[in-house]
Amino acid sequence: MTDRPPERRAPWPEPPDLLPDEGGGTLLKTRSDDDRDPSSQDAHLQVDFVQQVVEAVRREDAAEAADLVDGLALPDLADLFEVLPPSDRRQLAALAGDNLDPAVLPELDGQVFTDVVRQVPATLVAEAVRQLDSDDAIAVIEELDEDVQNQVLRRLAAADRVVIEEGLAYPEESAGRIMQRDLVAVPQFWTVGQTIDYLRAENPSLPDDFYEIIVTDPFHRPVGAIALSRVMRNERRVKIGDIMTRDPHLIDVMADQEDVAYQFNKYHLISAAVIDQSRRLVGVITVDDIVHVVEQEAQEDILALAGVSEGGVNESIVTMTRSRFTWLLVNLGTAVLASAVIGRFEATIQQLVALAVLMPIVASMGGNAGTQTMTVAVRALATKELSAANALRIVNKELLVGLINGALLAGVIGGVAWAWFGDPLLAGVLAAAMVINLAVAGLSGILVPMTLSRLGIDPAVSSTVFVTTITDVIGFLAFLGLAALVLL
Amino acid sequence: MTDRPPERRAPWPEPPDLLPDEGGGTLLKTRSDDDRDPSSQDAHLQVDFVQQVVEAVRREDAAEAADLVDGLALPDLADLFEVLPPSDRRQLAALAGDNLDPAVLPELDGQVFTDVVRQVPATLVAEAVRQLDSDDAIAVIEELDEDVQNQVLRRLAAADRVVIEEGLAYPEESAGRIMQRDLVAVPQFWTVGQTIDYLRAENPSLPDDFYEIIVTDPFHRPVGAIALSRVMRNERRVKIGDIMTRDPHLIDVMADQEDVAYQFNKYHLISAAVIDQSRRLVGVITVDDIVHVVEQEAQEDILALAGVSEGGVNESIVTMTRSRFTWLLVNLGTAVLASAVIGRFEATIQQLVALAVLMPIVASMGGNAGTQTMTVAVRALATKELSAANALRIVNKELLVGLINGALLAGVIGGVAWAWFGDPLLAGVLAAAMVINLAVAGLSGILVPMTLSRLGIDPAVSSTVFVTTITDVIGFLAFLGLAALVLL
Repeated sequence: MTDRPPERRAPWPEPPDLLPDEGGGTLLKTRSDDDRDPSSQDAHLQVDFVQQVVEAVRREDAAEAADLVDGLALPDLADLFEVLPPSDRRQLAALAGDNLDPAVLPELDGQVFTDVVRQVPATLVAEAVRQLDSDDAIAVIEELDEDVQNQVLRRLAAADRVVIEEGLAYPEESAGRIMQRDLVAVPQFWTVGQTIDYLRAENPSLPDDFYEIIVTDPFHRPVGAIALSRVMRNERRVKIGDIMTRDPHLIDVMADQEDVAYQFNKYHLISAAVIDQSRRLVGVITVDDIVHVVEQEAQEDILALAGVSEGGVNESIVTMTRSRFTWLLVNLGTAVLASAVIGRFEATIQQLVALAVLMPIVASMGGNAGTQTMTVAVRALATKELSAANALRIVNKELLVGLINGALLAGVIGGVAWAWFGDPLLAGVLAAAMVINLAVAGLSGILVPMTLSRLGIDPAVSSTVFVTTITDVIGFLAFLGLAALVLL
Repeated sequence: MTDRPPERRAPWPEPPDLLPDEGGGTLLKTRSDDDRDPSSQDAHLQVDFVQQVVEAVRREDAAEAADLVDGLALPDLADLFEVLPPSDRRQLAALAGDNLDPAVLPELDGQVFTDVVRQVPATLVAEAVRQLDSDDAIAVIEELDEDVQNQVLRRLAAADRVVIEEGLAYPEESAGRIMQRDLVAVPQFWTVGQTIDYLRAENPSLPDDFYEIIVTDPFHRPVGAIALSRVMRNERRVKIGDIMTRDPHLIDVMADQEDVAYQFNKYHLISAAVIDQSRRLVGVITVDDIVHVVEQEAQEDILALAGVSEGGVNESIVTMTRSRFTWLLVNLGTAVLASAVIGRFEATIQQLVALAVLMPIVASMGGNAGTQTMTVAVRALATKELSAANALRIVNKELLVGLINGALLAGVIGGVAWAWFGDPLLAGVLAAAMVINLAVAGLSGILVPMTLSRLGIDPAVSSTVFVTTITDVIGFLAFLGLAALVLL
């Protein structure tokens, strides 16, 4: 099955002078040489390299700085901007000025993008937007402050501006925002030969790189798609309609990017046509953009579960503080609620201080078990492994798992508490509370995200606070309540 | 910039009879019809459809079951197997037997795969392995129990078996496991015309679909790559060496799949050549497989942070219980440690029971703040946003954010406690403990994952337990210790 290169008679000489590739390919241009170790391609972003750049920047030595960053691939240049302290980052951008490769802008995010873009002339940003594919151009424009946005739009030719403005009219994180407007579409009665000739003609509206050709009907509605490799492997006289894949997978232009990523992942798509409400072709989404979406959506889920509203270590102190404060304030409320439950048992604790020593165990174990189940549930909802079709079965399973682990851990902690305080009844109460709270943790861990999802609320964002409140309150209530009943 | 279809003079008639595409394309074949709503492509997995399948399966009505699942796209058939209860899942696989499309096997994971594969004959599995691309074939084989694996391997032709065995020799989750052995490589002195003719020749070793051609030197080492679209858009007489991208991004065959995904995402790769230690071309990885890796690695991180070792709602009760028990047991240990800290202050609590009521607040807020910072840090390490080059700056930021939020929340909770217990000194102690614990949470939230990562330990797996232990212990110690000093 392994492919070998075609038969060769003798080694051939290296051509004397290879032309570099033209246009923004998908492959990396590095300043690498032949003995480059493929496993350490980030080597140039080592601490001492960054330090050299910082020193050059602080000496305002533009020539030295340019010399250092020259030959960095764009994604590496973007990484360099990210690791620099904000003042040096702004200074490097200012030193680069007009010489900055505008294609670096779509590689930057959040605060780093803002820092850099404020230092470079609007003409450079306009140039970036003009050069970039429409999806990248929109990604740059949407990050700009409104006044800069208007300045840049005014500098564009009318045709380019219309494309950008149409793109911005779609909701954020929709298919319309991430799709590419430049695409290749042909009618199904064309032959392979006609298609190749069309592609060979100098045609500025063709994208730099593409992987599938969309086949449309007279109303510009997609009726098929065909991988480039399949076009290439057929004779010139073969009709496109005879070799295309019918019923291509189509994406609604208003679909959420998370749903688009789900479809790409599930159906192993390389590219997919995007259609509007009248089923007309308006764009195409390719899988390289989807990798970024998958990463970003998973990142959002991870951070949301931990209660961080905006991620990134490069945000400003104010943004970072604010992005975490709200969640902490909400949790302070639930912590006070749990304290109020304890407050009801002040007299009980007064009589038996050992209760105060042991009570955090039950609440904390419930919180951990609830978080486990909840995290599995949130992911299963995101990947649609958990749906109405199997909900009841999964809920039962989680309850059972909670009961089994509760019983096992109750045995352990009961033994520890008995040995520690020498009181079998106290140990029994602790063990019983543990079983109750772990069963509650299993149930709330699955039911809370399912309910939120049913109500149209993102379960990743709000499940944690409900689940931990429930396990805290039930944890203290079960332990102290049983203790008040049994021990006093 | 928008592409319009080529000029047409008049609408053309629909061709009377379109041939279906041949070979496993990347596009979906559904049983859809023309008025399909693109936003509801999962509609056939609605509860009532699943219920119909379950009923047919329980009646052992193979014909009815086949009729129902007929026309489901493979990924949808895989989803159906996933949502079915285990007994019905096995029964459906048994009813299908030889008629099951073997290409569904690589779509199944974990317990679901095992359930299905045990019901189908080894000949079918061997057939699947024979038909599939090498990466999918290896993905199927590696999931089999050893005796079934040997049975299947024995049924393969020697050439196929060697490819599989070579693939299995690479470490799990390495580039060698996910790469595709079938690829297209040509020498750089070839012309576009020669390349197209080579592709058109019936050649069983060519992959079904491919997006880039790799250009190799006489020693079969990659020296360039070229997107298919670029080959197509050049004249037949143009030399490949003149239009290829030099210095293509190369992947080490032993690289971890997480690192491969990172490179695809960072450098926006569509496909990349995989090389062995002597820099020879051994395979190619395409981005559609990377989407799955990104999803899977993010999933692993999310679940690991919550302390779940194996995910999925479809695992057996035993696997689910076990995958969560270890973590809970470790946390029980840390909870007992925290209790031991409280135990040191039994006398203090005896004198002032309000301490028992308020003490969980400080520990719980520290846990939440620590988890926030830790989650951001774990992600920043995974995406290499956080590295030695900016570590010190980020640690300082996290400490500052912890202090600011600590001060804000100390104000809130101090006020609440004062109003509740009417004791300004008690409120002051609580507020001071809050500031201390949130600063400690910020510091440990960033330092623990950084240290683990430096030690070569996956920070996603083990950070949580260290961070929450620290915030629990410091939380109780700071509050009760200050109280003992100041209040009594």
